[in-house]
Amino acid sequence: MKLDNSNSNSNGQVSLPAAADVSPPRNSDDADEAFVPPLNFAMVDNGIFRSGFPDSANFGFMKSLRLRSVICLCPEPYPEATAEFLNANGIRLYQFGIDGCKHRTGCLVGCIRRLQRWCLSSIFDEYQRFAGAKARVSDQRFIELFDISSLKHNPLIFSCSRK
Amino acid sequence: MKLDNSNSNSNGQVSLPAAADVSPPRNSDDADEAFVPPLNFAMVDNGIFRSGFPDSANFGFMKSLRLRSVICLCPEPYPEATAEFLNANGIRLYQFGIDGCKHRTGCLVGCIRRLQRWCLSSIFDEYQRFAGAKARVSDQRFIELFDISSLKHNPLIFSCSRK
Repeated sequence: MKLDNSNSNSNGQVSLPAAADVSPPRNSDDADEAFVPPLNFAMVDNGIFRSGFPDSANFGFMKSLRLRSVICLCPEPYPEATAEFLNANGIRLYQFGIDGCKHRTGCLVGCIRRLQRWCLSSIFDEYQRFAGAKARVSDQRFIELFDISSLKHNPLIFSCSRK
Repeated sequence: MKLDNSNSNSNGQVSLPAAADVSPPRNSDDADEAFVPPLNFAMVDNGIFRSGFPDSANFGFMKSLRLRSVICLCPEPYPEATAEFLNANGIRLYQFGIDGCKHRTGCLVGCIRRLQRWCLSSIFDEYQRFAGAKARVSDQRFIELFDISSLKHNPLIFSCSRK
């Protein structure tokens, strides 16, 4: 995983929102601010986001999300400026360094979709949308073989279904 | 817009969730059901989804979303089976037929991102992810020229920021 976002298909981060009770009020001074989401940013489900590795240009947008936690899947040391941003905003970093240079986030999201009982064709449709020309059969096989049998009595339902 | 989902890049629908108070309880009988989201399904924001045109294979997943409204951007008559599904589930259909055969949903989502004050590079990153090889400069120009000046004092904030 690269530690910058110069690769438009870089994926390395899953983010969780802050609890409502620790959210600072929105500052009216930033009403004209343009938001710069990280490359490959998307909502995975309510309160779960994915993106490539952010840089300082993305901090304003990330701050607006009121994140509670960030999961980094890169083995490289976490960049100091980004770590400072997380600290300053009360965001906890979980780093699970996984070797390999592509699509770790795509695999993780694919496994989440397995837990949500999506069919494989829909999971791969989503995987390929983010992986583009860099899609790997081995990643898709990993997702297919991910063992959810021990979790089948406690499925992770797509959160919009959990009303 | 095609009225089936045989085109993997077909886009034609934006869906809104049902109000919580009209949501039926989840049936425990469907615990082993595999969900089949429509092609190109994704969350746009909390409570807003996008997808290609659904068919009957997608009805189970769509039902789980407890939709309140569906916006269809196709000018063709709405398929009877899909209309019956919407009626049976209390989902209101809004049809705004727009001529052209591709990416109307991509343009609509791009305009939503303009209202959410995303920078154009991030809007186009998202647009191209869904449009793939069928991305059109004219669509991106439409998004860029979309006039939000009358709405700038009432911006549509990415809903995760609205705590």
